[in-house]
Amino acid sequence: MLPANFYFKVTKKMGETENLKYHQLYNYIEARERLDTVINKTKLIQSSVFSEETGNEVYIKPENLQRTGSFKIRGAYNKMAKLSDTEKLRGVIASSAGNHAQGVAFAAQKLGVKAVIVMPKYTPLIKVEATKKYGAELVLEGEVYDEAYEKALELQKEQGYTFVHPFDDEDVIEGQGTIALELLEEVPEPDIILVPLGGGGLISGIASAAKLKSPLVKVIGVEPQGAASAKAALKAGKPVELSECITIADGTAVKKIGDITYEYIKKYVDDIITVSDYELMESFLLLAETHKVIGENAGILALAGIKKLKVKDKKIVSILSGGNIDVLTISSMIGKGLVERGRIFTFAVDLPDKPGELLNVSRVLTELNANVIKLDHNQFKNLDRFHDVELVVTVETYGHEHIELITRKMLEKGYVINCLNIDK
Amino acid sequence: MLPANFYFKVTKKMGETENLKYHQLYNYIEARERLDTVINKTKLIQSSVFSEETGNEVYIKPENLQRTGSFKIRGAYNKMAKLSDTEKLRGVIASSAGNHAQGVAFAAQKLGVKAVIVMPKYTPLIKVEATKKYGAELVLEGEVYDEAYEKALELQKEQGYTFVHPFDDEDVIEGQGTIALELLEEVPEPDIILVPLGGGGLISGIASAAKLKSPLVKVIGVEPQGAASAKAALKAGKPVELSECITIADGTAVKKIGDITYEYIKKYVDDIITVSDYELMESFLLLAETHKVIGENAGILALAGIKKLKVKDKKIVSILSGGNIDVLTISSMIGKGLVERGRIFTFAVDLPDKPGELLNVSRVLTELNANVIKLDHNQFKNLDRFHDVELVVTVETYGHEHIELITRKMLEKGYVINCLNIDK
Repeated sequence: MLPANFYFKVTKKMGETENLKYHQLYNYIEARERLDTVINKTKLIQSSVFSEETGNEVYIKPENLQRTGSFKIRGAYNKMAKLSDTEKLRGVIASSAGNHAQGVAFAAQKLGVKAVIVMPKYTPLIKVEATKKYGAELVLEGEVYDEAYEKALELQKEQGYTFVHPFDDEDVIEGQGTIALELLEEVPEPDIILVPLGGGGLISGIASAAKLKSPLVKVIGVEPQGAASAKAALKAGKPVELSECITIADGTAVKKIGDITYEYIKKYVDDIITVSDYELMESFLLLAETHKVIGENAGILALAGIKKLKVKDKKIVSILSGGNIDVLTISSMIGKGLVERGRIFTFAVDLPDKPGELLNVSRVLTELNANVIKLDHNQFKNLDRFHDVELVVTVETYGHEHIELITRKMLEKGYVINCLNIDK
Repeated sequence: MLPANFYFKVTKKMGETENLKYHQLYNYIEARERLDTVINKTKLIQSSVFSEETGNEVYIKPENLQRTGSFKIRGAYNKMAKLSDTEKLRGVIASSAGNHAQGVAFAAQKLGVKAVIVMPKYTPLIKVEATKKYGAELVLEGEVYDEAYEKALELQKEQGYTFVHPFDDEDVIEGQGTIALELLEEVPEPDIILVPLGGGGLISGIASAAKLKSPLVKVIGVEPQGAASAKAALKAGKPVELSECITIADGTAVKKIGDITYEYIKKYVDDIITVSDYELMESFLLLAETHKVIGENAGILALAGIKKLKVKDKKIVSILSGGNIDVLTISSMIGKGLVERGRIFTFAVDLPDKPGELLNVSRVLTELNANVIKLDHNQFKNLDRFHDVELVVTVETYGHEHIELITRKMLEKGYVINCLNIDK
């Protein structure tokens, strides 16, 4: 770790503002020391692919390779390490079905503190297990997150536990801010730091810490289009509750940002942009294919956001905040991605109900090197045309040009095909 | 980089053997210096999951995070950097549809040398593109690899190119050996180094270099069960050609190991073990889920091999040699893995052909929280029973116990189900 004066030049002439800044920065440096033996110091990945795609110099901070698979351990540990001995003896409580649960459980195990985690009843078994393995006590309660949260507050009052909030807490924010100090050691003067934004804990810590050291850096938050609660809050002038969250980035599907994080965001964050589920899927595939690492959907918001910035020749650090994604979800992301890229093509074609038609279709597909992976033959589809059956074919293809070629060749042979999984 | 005397104590009393060893080691150190600015120094990942699973202290050397996505760049660059100026002017040629192609193309670009790569005609477009982007000249020739190889030799003679062999070459082997020096800096005294084994270039370099520095380390090769050409060679006392290769680890599907690598393996390798496609699939999922990184099937041989060692409390470094896997293959690996883990369950059930039966089945599945993802209803299956239809159902499940519960409940309701994707 670098000494404090790397971050800040202490001089005898410092005025009050300077002195305050120094002390604020010192808090982050102390948090970093607190975390020193507990976390991985994730090393920046210089990304030639994201750089070339966007015309910038892009670095990725891979917190998906962090212990427990996300940055959440930083805030949780920092919060819990600062508790008094009495508070530590009483234990902590949190409600979460995701990365925060694992962060709290892991930190508690390291500190020898009892942790109770309340999760909604229908939390996937895999997330329950991931938290249990760090020795936390699990309480499954409520149909949705809000009910689990209520239960946690109730237990906290009954048992005297300390509540560890996933984002709206100064000590949690301080822990997340250590990411900024780490990345500034590797890239001292970035132009832009892009940060995934859910409840706002991560960006609050990073923005405030980064600007103490590098006042000129722009910090930009990236929210899912369908859960842009920080954007809504800034517009309304206070945290407001979204009526719904519709996004595949479940880790940042937060209806209302925090009161504390709202103040940080207003003060330190330069802009907030949004990305679509489709853009997340694209970034997921690009990341897996070129860097061989896996990001969860909320984790890759800031990667998907780079393209939306419309800047060139900037030095950009993009925070990849987590990698906890179910393999079933990976599989579905890949499936949708392949369709979008024209690597899988499903079409329907009406065939006269007589022998030889399937042979003709098969011949066209074989000649064009399109490998059939699924076939459905439906007699009942066209009730108005008694002599036709519908054939639904899924083939592996080489891209959109290949699909156009197939469509054209089929038409030449007299078959009008209906593209089922391509927007035309 | 550490100085040479970290690896070897030079004394005045060194005899001839010691002197020879010193010079051999020095060659590897020089190769490392050659590669210094070209490659990523991939940092070991300490794996708590693979450690706990096998009762050892396991480290992963992630060459999937290497430039071009595999270790191949080391050997290719080392070979090409050592060419004379005349040879460099003439250019190089290689035949490969995989990682070696990208390694050679990348190295050629770095060195400003012309590279011609011969690939079989039906090489997937994605691999062609990956090689083209480094500026290599592509020749698509032959139905299978052997024909591309012949074409490359032909062009080499015609044009005076230098042939860069994927494994059977002293300079290529020397380049791969730099991996051993790197990992010994981080874990100076491992008990075992596990290495994926295809043609033998990687293990030849690692075994010979590692033993110069740490004579006590055991180096063990891991081959696919369906392509164990090194095991066959050691048994026969010379490289022999397998009649076929059947493995999902396509990068190590080599029918015959090299003449040079055979000598290295005989001299330096302590044992060779094999793993099945099923074991590779298991390791693929474990690696993706816990470490959030992607390995190609050939790349993870040495991870799958750890379980087969049947050792405890050993310090093991497992080489993860590459991560170039098509997303379509990832999707298929996940699909098969989910079936094996009981997370996807397909069963057939014969239903009386009357209303209400589908409702009954749906009710059982809903009560047991099994999410239906596919349904087929087939009237024509049971030709001998005119009153039955066959229903084929695919559901998402929580594991094998959940599947047993579903099977039992269905039986209680009078439905005998036929498990279609589970070995019983």
